[in-house]
Amino acid sequence: MALILGIDPGSLKTGFGVINTIGSKNEYIGSGVIRLPAESPLPARLKIIFRSLIEIIEEYQPQQMAVEQVFVSKSAGSALKLGQARGAAIVAGVHSELEVFEYEARKVKQSVVGTGAADKYQVQHMVKHLLRLSATPQEDAADALAVALCHAHTHQHLVATTKSVAFRRGRLV
Amino acid sequence: MALILGIDPGSLKTGFGVINTIGSKNEYIGSGVIRLPAESPLPARLKIIFRSLIEIIEEYQPQQMAVEQVFVSKSAGSALKLGQARGAAIVAGVHSELEVFEYEARKVKQSVVGTGAADKYQVQHMVKHLLRLSATPQEDAADALAVALCHAHTHQHLVATTKSVAFRRGRLV
Repeated sequence: MALILGIDPGSLKTGFGVINTIGSKNEYIGSGVIRLPAESPLPARLKIIFRSLIEIIEEYQPQQMAVEQVFVSKSAGSALKLGQARGAAIVAGVHSELEVFEYEARKVKQSVVGTGAADKYQVQHMVKHLLRLSATPQEDAADALAVALCHAHTHQHLVATTKSVAFRRGRLV
Repeated sequence: MALILGIDPGSLKTGFGVINTIGSKNEYIGSGVIRLPAESPLPARLKIIFRSLIEIIEEYQPQQMAVEQVFVSKSAGSALKLGQARGAAIVAGVHSELEVFEYEARKVKQSVVGTGAADKYQVQHMVKHLLRLSATPQEDAADALAVALCHAHTHQHLVATTKSVAFRRGRLV
């Protein structure tokens, strides 16, 4: 049994999702979106990400954090903004003594939808299906749940095959 | 009197410098470089930046943090890496209840050297001169001291003119 916190960091919205994985079963625990006031200065926005995630970690007590690994093709300016939000989110995890794993976006989609080229609606649909939810989660929350599921799947698969490679796919800290 | 912590964040080396500003005089307190192992995974590196800065803040007890505001022209990949380091550093400041200010690189050079187009050697030279140091500080430490000096100069100037605009140039959180 492990509680996994998935994170989809962003400079305006940071999604989070918590699942409980028992054997090959994954159970939905909670999810949501941290919304950041666009007009606030950067340090204030990063403080909100950090503090909110610290609170979420205290509330749900996950043991592991999974974060999407992005390979940005957008502008350097948006990459910098995303990087700052990612930095604040990952620091909240390591500061809380969580193991932090990163997964490539393609791998997350592959794991949840079955194809690395899936669009966001397919991700939302499959997250809803896999976690037996009655409603479709918001886009960023769905992405966060998807990366948590990807971590659970990778882990389950690896544990099922051989223990020696248990941490080869996700990065263990 | 105010203790100012200047930061020059980077994904491999993060410079820091502490100055004490009393009236129009600025005194060197300490500086150094946090070196990050390139082979470590990202969360481990961000943890080092965050934890080291928390320790530095506990040791020197600064009231304010000044960080260079970068406008990257490099690749999206390096902007993302820089952003992550910046995010971790700024979160260390706001988590420690420091006021965090950002200054454009041009403004830092203008303030310390007298021209926004100064090179790194001119910055190192002027930091050494302004703080009456016996040796030239390492490049990243010099940049960190330069942004601390820029904050001190801006503050001194603004306090000297009118209190109502005291925080217009630096961003107050």
